[in-house]
Amino acid sequence: MSHQQALTKYIAAFITELVKNGVEDVVVSPGSRSTPMAMVMAEHPDLQVHIHVDERSAAFFALGMAKGTKRPVAILCTSGTAAANYYPAIIEAFYSRVPLLVFTADRPHELRDIGAPQAIDQIQMYGKNVKWFAEMAPPENAASMINYVRTTAVRAVATAKRNPAGPVHLNFPFREPLIPDLNDPEIFHSSSREEKYMTVSSSFLTVDDARFDTMAQTVSTYKKGLIICGPMDDADLSHKIVELGKVLQFPIIADPLSQLRSGRHEQSQIIDAYDAILKSETAKVELQPELIIRFGAMPVSKPLLLFMKQYPETRQLIVDGGGGFRDPSLLSTDMIYCDEKQFCEELTLRANARQENDYLTLWQDVNDVAKSEMVKVLEIEQLNEGKIFAQLGQLLPEEATIFVGNSMPIRDLDSFYFGNNKSMRILGNRGANGIDGTISTALGVAMHAQPLYLIVGDLTFFHDLNGLIASKLYHIPITVIVINNNGGGIFSFLPQSEHPKHFELLFGTPLNIDFSHSVTMFGGDYIKVEDWQQFSEAIETETSHLKVIEVMTNRENNVREHRNLWESVSREIDKRIKDED
Amino acid sequence: MSHQQALTKYIAAFITELVKNGVEDVVVSPGSRSTPMAMVMAEHPDLQVHIHVDERSAAFFALGMAKGTKRPVAILCTSGTAAANYYPAIIEAFYSRVPLLVFTADRPHELRDIGAPQAIDQIQMYGKNVKWFAEMAPPENAASMINYVRTTAVRAVATAKRNPAGPVHLNFPFREPLIPDLNDPEIFHSSSREEKYMTVSSSFLTVDDARFDTMAQTVSTYKKGLIICGPMDDADLSHKIVELGKVLQFPIIADPLSQLRSGRHEQSQIIDAYDAILKSETAKVELQPELIIRFGAMPVSKPLLLFMKQYPETRQLIVDGGGGFRDPSLLSTDMIYCDEKQFCEELTLRANARQENDYLTLWQDVNDVAKSEMVKVLEIEQLNEGKIFAQLGQLLPEEATIFVGNSMPIRDLDSFYFGNNKSMRILGNRGANGIDGTISTALGVAMHAQPLYLIVGDLTFFHDLNGLIASKLYHIPITVIVINNNGGGIFSFLPQSEHPKHFELLFGTPLNIDFSHSVTMFGGDYIKVEDWQQFSEAIETETSHLKVIEVMTNRENNVREHRNLWESVSREIDKRIKDED
Repeated sequence: MSHQQALTKYIAAFITELVKNGVEDVVVSPGSRSTPMAMVMAEHPDLQVHIHVDERSAAFFALGMAKGTKRPVAILCTSGTAAANYYPAIIEAFYSRVPLLVFTADRPHELRDIGAPQAIDQIQMYGKNVKWFAEMAPPENAASMINYVRTTAVRAVATAKRNPAGPVHLNFPFREPLIPDLNDPEIFHSSSREEKYMTVSSSFLTVDDARFDTMAQTVSTYKKGLIICGPMDDADLSHKIVELGKVLQFPIIADPLSQLRSGRHEQSQIIDAYDAILKSETAKVELQPELIIRFGAMPVSKPLLLFMKQYPETRQLIVDGGGGFRDPSLLSTDMIYCDEKQFCEELTLRANARQENDYLTLWQDVNDVAKSEMVKVLEIEQLNEGKIFAQLGQLLPEEATIFVGNSMPIRDLDSFYFGNNKSMRILGNRGANGIDGTISTALGVAMHAQPLYLIVGDLTFFHDLNGLIASKLYHIPITVIVINNNGGGIFSFLPQSEHPKHFELLFGTPLNIDFSHSVTMFGGDYIKVEDWQQFSEAIETETSHLKVIEVMTNRENNVREHRNLWESVSREIDKRIKDED
Repeated sequence: MSHQQALTKYIAAFITELVKNGVEDVVVSPGSRSTPMAMVMAEHPDLQVHIHVDERSAAFFALGMAKGTKRPVAILCTSGTAAANYYPAIIEAFYSRVPLLVFTADRPHELRDIGAPQAIDQIQMYGKNVKWFAEMAPPENAASMINYVRTTAVRAVATAKRNPAGPVHLNFPFREPLIPDLNDPEIFHSSSREEKYMTVSSSFLTVDDARFDTMAQTVSTYKKGLIICGPMDDADLSHKIVELGKVLQFPIIADPLSQLRSGRHEQSQIIDAYDAILKSETAKVELQPELIIRFGAMPVSKPLLLFMKQYPETRQLIVDGGGGFRDPSLLSTDMIYCDEKQFCEELTLRANARQENDYLTLWQDVNDVAKSEMVKVLEIEQLNEGKIFAQLGQLLPEEATIFVGNSMPIRDLDSFYFGNNKSMRILGNRGANGIDGTISTALGVAMHAQPLYLIVGDLTFFHDLNGLIASKLYHIPITVIVINNNGGGIFSFLPQSEHPKHFELLFGTPLNIDFSHSVTMFGGDYIKVEDWQQFSEAIETETSHLKVIEVMTNRENNVREHRNLWESVSREIDKRIKDED
């Protein structure tokens, strides 16, 4: 059998097995060394090949698809720095637990470390940021090697998917000639084990009954209990948490990415204004908790973290079915490695049901007070940042997906986006919280989730501007709201802003560019809105491709407006609590 | 002493020492965790701080400055994926031996691996692609810690500079509060060792006299000897190689990045059409070498590599003062770790001088034949790719710097850019040969080398389009020639092109975008030339900022024209050699 046929059989066996294990999408960046795999992938009838010239955007685009569909998505590139461009998205996938299959083509062993062109050391090049790395054997067609490559495909998919999901890296050495033999009509046919080569059981972490009993007893003991939900994306889990909350009569603090602020579930116990509430010293004293049960990653709110740190004696349970250690407060008392849904079910059954709870009522009261102040942002007539987020619940349609940028937008969403009964899904890149790759990630999500609204600041928009090309090439509809305060708005809220000497150089960083040019280049509609009427209209008009709505704001006004609102929340909470005394 | 003062003293001592050791430029990407170092850097009167929002472009921009000036340049970013965006440029710096100081801010130890925001594992995150990694101690002001941080600064600079130069990574854990104390006027004053803390000797690799004698004897033995010069950038070395070549009467094969094709040195022995020559089977037979002496990295020419491989018995000396192993032919017989200039001097002294050499004459003859065919590209009236490169020597001014993109442009430069007496410097990213970061690298070079001409294909231009912002923000003049064949032109020369089924999807990859929008956004002049008259005018007009000249070409015509020229070179060589028989 020729080199070409062996190469083809080996790769085809691998691809076949990937597809049988649920991989539907691959993002390929053009290159020479990756030719055999790219061509076999393109040949497979059930694998969708997306081309992305910039590997950084390509990887984020794949991350978005994987995040949106919860299926592993593959990326493929050639040797050299191409592979290094994947690094930011791989890290994000690792920390946000998104299944990603990273395939890099490499020179074969005899062309490594000897100055051959485009040859770098790709062995474990992503360090600890992948769940599994394997240096693949050079392609061969012996039965044992076909078993090996099929096993590896099954294992790669299973490893990427297993909780905590994450990236897996396989490095493929390919020798020239690189052209596969696509003439064989049986290329994707396996002579043995025609279905999957093997299965990997879908398992989960759990604890024994005695431990469930103890935990149920514990949570029943405390009246001042809080459930805190960070970023998570499982509608089923959301419902089970709400049920547990109901039995315990605990308030449920819902991060904007917890999927608990909007949806058809019972909302009465959801606390969505905690970020503003916990800036009030009075509230922090009155609302002291005795017990905290945490689900999901750490919420974005800094006041919430400071509140938790203020009471180091609080019993704090962290439930993590992924077996991680997500406690930047360093104050947790019980780390519970157990499937979150099972935990909720078991405790809902075993805990002593309460009929009412003053602590919950107090939270509900101050939450209402805080919200009634925060919504006053809607009264501001000039364009401003908070009001954008306060209007989303009303303006966006049922089943919309919101993708929110890091830095200020996620914080403004936290501050101004309040509960509603629309089924909306809200996603962001909260693994490593970077501003990079945001457009590409959102477009990846948009591949399988429509309509999609991306909200970003101008620096984040700039960072991944080229990512917009996917919308043009693949006709992906997306509405992008760019909040343009000409620079790094978040720093105006930080202590840096009190040191004017180097502030504008190092932190303000105005770009002074007119994004309309770029939007036009990528075939999009660009709308710079001048007032709220135009904003609503721009949002509500349906789009079949790229639409960018730019809202110009002012960094200084923005800080002032935020602080005014937060101060009035604190003032009103003070009043309310003193009235009750 | 407060945390703030200790933080400031520690960082200021570090920065002071960097500057004393020759660091003049730092590229900072905005972020919060890096605040203390960014602010102290901005405060130092002798350190130039450049801001670049996109860390990928930032790192390439620094790489360009370091490449252009041969001085170490520093980059600084915040924690998280920001640091991962540096990876492509770090790899390029490692393989192309460019001194780069990579400073990443990190969360302190107590905030690592516990789900804190923007915290990833930054320890050795660039793997084997840096020369040295150090996890820095948390800032303290004890005398021993100031000695430590000053020593580390000296060592980092020395390590980055030492042959082979390369990147060094220091990871700095910073605790809040992050604001340094800039009120102290003595911040950059050292109480001890006011000059440099210490020096590191500037040493080089050498061999003993006996070995120089043996080598001189060896090279004198062979008449059919070839000197092959790959990418290198040292005018002094160029002259010494020419002198050695003269004594030995060996032809000097000069890669376009060897700095030997243009300049005021004696050019008679420089062979610049070898890429076309060595496509001729006749030439490959007639020109069989007995000895090869190689300097610099491996040249770009594939025909040259195949020619070397055709004669595995050739004695092949590789001279590498950096102690690497740059031999993808795997046929070298003598790896000589010796400073290249010293090697040339010693052998020039010790070797037996020849008066003439038939082998040289034959190379000179076929070189003339080949060139007289290749320059016929100038007769083609329609816009085409080869003619762009054939005109550069004439159109560009003395002291111009050319930065050439990878993929086709470097190969076309090899094919069509012939010797001339102008002092022009030609640079490219030939460490890992990526198409990423090319605009930013060129702009970095342009900071200290004017006028600068960048020549890239459309995919390379697209890959780093955002890098153009540095030209706008820092008013860096640059002339960019974009050869737009709407996709990956190089693949039309490769075997992939014979398999049309998936070709356009996977390799053609047309972007169909009009770059003029982007050029306008970044404040540049955009000129789409329609004929050669417009092309010359566009090149010759001086510019004080960004100028982009777009030349539209056609991938299929391009392959045909190249092949026609190469075939006529082979035909004419055949004729010449038969005439002589």
